[in-house]
Amino acid sequence: MAVVGGGVIGLAIAWRCARRGLRVVVHDPAPGSGASGVAAGMLSPVVEAHFGEDELPGLLADSAARWPGFAAELTEAAGTPIGYRTDGTLVVGLTGDDLAEARRLWTYQQGLGLPITPLRPSQVRDREPALTLRLRGGAFAATDHQVDPRRLVTALRTAAERAGARLVDTPVTDLSEVVAPVTVVAAGCGAAALTGLPVRPVKGQILRLRAPDGGPPGFRHVIRGYADGEPVYLVPRADGEVVVGATVEERSDTAVSAGAVLRLLRAAVDLVPDLAEYDLVETVAGLRPGTPDNAPVLGPLPGRPGVVVATGHHRHGIVLAPVTADLIADLVVTGTPDPLLAPFGADRFTCGAARPGSTGRSKQSIEEDGWT
Amino acid sequence: MAVVGGGVIGLAIAWRCARRGLRVVVHDPAPGSGASGVAAGMLSPVVEAHFGEDELPGLLADSAARWPGFAAELTEAAGTPIGYRTDGTLVVGLTGDDLAEARRLWTYQQGLGLPITPLRPSQVRDREPALTLRLRGGAFAATDHQVDPRRLVTALRTAAERAGARLVDTPVTDLSEVVAPVTVVAAGCGAAALTGLPVRPVKGQILRLRAPDGGPPGFRHVIRGYADGEPVYLVPRADGEVVVGATVEERSDTAVSAGAVLRLLRAAVDLVPDLAEYDLVETVAGLRPGTPDNAPVLGPLPGRPGVVVATGHHRHGIVLAPVTADLIADLVVTGTPDPLLAPFGADRFTCGAARPGSTGRSKQSIEEDGWT
Repeated sequence: MAVVGGGVIGLAIAWRCARRGLRVVVHDPAPGSGASGVAAGMLSPVVEAHFGEDELPGLLADSAARWPGFAAELTEAAGTPIGYRTDGTLVVGLTGDDLAEARRLWTYQQGLGLPITPLRPSQVRDREPALTLRLRGGAFAATDHQVDPRRLVTALRTAAERAGARLVDTPVTDLSEVVAPVTVVAAGCGAAALTGLPVRPVKGQILRLRAPDGGPPGFRHVIRGYADGEPVYLVPRADGEVVVGATVEERSDTAVSAGAVLRLLRAAVDLVPDLAEYDLVETVAGLRPGTPDNAPVLGPLPGRPGVVVATGHHRHGIVLAPVTADLIADLVVTGTPDPLLAPFGADRFTCGAARPGSTGRSKQSIEEDGWT
Repeated sequence: MAVVGGGVIGLAIAWRCARRGLRVVVHDPAPGSGASGVAAGMLSPVVEAHFGEDELPGLLADSAARWPGFAAELTEAAGTPIGYRTDGTLVVGLTGDDLAEARRLWTYQQGLGLPITPLRPSQVRDREPALTLRLRGGAFAATDHQVDPRRLVTALRTAAERAGARLVDTPVTDLSEVVAPVTVVAAGCGAAALTGLPVRPVKGQILRLRAPDGGPPGFRHVIRGYADGEPVYLVPRADGEVVVGATVEERSDTAVSAGAVLRLLRAAVDLVPDLAEYDLVETVAGLRPGTPDNAPVLGPLPGRPGVVVATGHHRHGIVLAPVTADLIADLVVTGTPDPLLAPFGADRFTCGAARPGSTGRSKQSIEEDGWT
C-alpha cells in the first residue's frame, strides 16, 4: 500500500499498517513539514467540543481515550520521547466578558457529559500560580492533555520505518503516479488537488517561546483562555518551549502578520505576565486542512476503487491521529469501514449519483477492485 | 594599514583610506554581521539630540551634513543603491502625556538651534495620512533622513574593494596578530577585549515588517513616536520594508524577548494602524557599542603607538559613519588628529599617567612609532 503524505496522520497510518504486516511506502518530499510541524499538540476532546458540531465530539473523545496506549506503544516502538503530558488543561477568562464566553462553552461541554470542572479565581491560581491575578475565573479539564507534534513526527517516522515502512521523497501530483493496490491520501490540504474533495486551507499563525533560563516554563498546564475577547492557548513543554496559538484565518498564504503576533503576544502576556521575559524563538504560519463541516474525511473515495482518504482534520489532527490510524488500518486490512467512520465519509461531499444515501454512507466497501 | 572590523564604520574607513592610496586590509570573519546588520539607519542629528549630551550633537550635525555627498559618492563608487531617503522625520505623540514628553525634547532641540517644526495634529496627518487619528500632535525634522544599513554595508564593501582594499576573514583576537604600520580598531563591542577600553554592549531588539502586497509602505516619513509611554520609531523603505525599533537594554545577550516584540508591535500599530496587516519578516537583536558617556571613541589608543580606535558609536553608528571615516582617514594619512576629534579621544577613559590632560587630550599624535 501507499500513503501519500508524511505528516502525523500519514505516518501514524503507515506505522499501524506496517505493524499489521502490510508493505507500506510513504510518499512525501518533506515529512512533517505541513500542519504537523506547526501544530501545538493539544489533545483536547473536552474544550474542543464546540456548538454545532454533531459527530465530532464523539470521535475526539474516542481518539483521546486511545492516546495513553498510543503514546506508550509509540514511545516503546520508536525509543524517542514525544512530549506526552497529562497535567490537564485550565480554561480561564481574563475579564467578566471573557469569563462569560468561556462559561457559555464549558456549560455546553458539561451538558455533553464531558469532564470539566468550574473553578473560582483563587482555585485557578492555586493550580497555576503563574496566571495573572486579574483573571475572573475558569475551569479544569483533567483529561485534556498534550503532546509535542514535532517529536511525534520524528517518533512516528522511526516507528514506521522500524516496522518496515519505507519513505520516499518523490512528490505525488496525481494519484495515477502511485502504483499500489491501496493508496491512502493523507496529504492535508494537498488532498484537494489529488481527490477533488472540498478540502480548503485554514491558516493558523502560532508562536514558540522559550523559558529564558533554559529551564522548564513557569507553568505546567495547558492554558486556554480568553483575554479581552482574544482566544489564545498556551502549551508548556518540559523542555522549556511554550507554544502560543493560534489564529484561524480563511486564507491560503503562510505569511506571519504583525497584527496576529501582536494579538497572540498580548493575550499570552495578559494571562501569564512572566511570558514577557521569555524568548520569542519562532513565528510561523501553517495551513490546516478544513472541510465544509470542519470534520475530517475518513474512508473510501467514491468512484476511485483502492483510494482511501484521511484528511480534513482541521484543528484536530494530532488528537485524532490514533483513531484515524487504527480505523484506516482496519479498513485497509479488512476492506470494510468501521461503523465509527460512517459520519465522516467522503461521500457526504459528493452529491447526487455518487452518494449512497445518508444511512448507508461510508459503508461503501473499498473492495470494488480486489486489492487487499 | 589594517582595519579590524568590517561593519559600516570599519568599511567606511577602509573605503576612504583606500581611496587616498593606502593599502588597506579589513579583518572580519563576517562583515556587516554586527550592529550594522541590525541598525535601522536613521540619520537623525536633530531628534537624536538628547539632554545631557554636550559634544555629541555637534558631531551628529557635522556628519549628517556630510551624508548627501557621502551617499552620492558611495552610490557612484559602488554602483548599488543604499536606500538613502530625504523625506524627513515626523515626531509624534499619541496621548497628551506622550506629546508632552515629545515636546519637552523638541523644545530642547530648538534651543540648540536645530531645525524642528512643531505641528498641529491635522498638520501631522496631512503630511502622513497613515498615522492614527488619535494622535495629539507632533513636529517635523526635515533634515533627519534615512539609509538602509544592510545595503550600505554591501555598497561600502564593494566601494572599498574597488578602491583596492582587501577583506580577509581571519578573526582577530589580539592586536598583536595584526601586522601593519597602523591598525584601526572598528570592532564595535569587540573593541573592549582588543583595547581594554570601556566599551559595553547595549542590546537593541528590532523588527522588520514588509508591506503585504509587495509595494512600498503606506507612509514615507521616518516616524519617531511615543505611544502610551513607549518610544518607538518606524522607518519605511522604498522596497516595502518597515523597520520598527528599538529597545535599549543594558545586557549582552541577543535573544529576542516576547515582551519587547509585544511592546514594539503595540506602539507601532497604535501609531500606524495599517501595520497590523504587514508581514512580520524578522525579529532580531543586536549589540550597540556603548561607552560611559555614550559618545564614540575616535583617535589614537594611548600607550599603543600605531593603534587608532573608532568605536563606541552606540545608537549613532550609521549617521556618524561619514565624519568618522573622513577624520580617521585624515588621522591615518597625516598622523595628526583633527580638532573635531578632541572631545572623543580614548584618553578620556584612561585616567592617571596615560592621560595627557584635558586641554591636550586627543592631540596626542599617533606618530610615536613611524608608521605612515
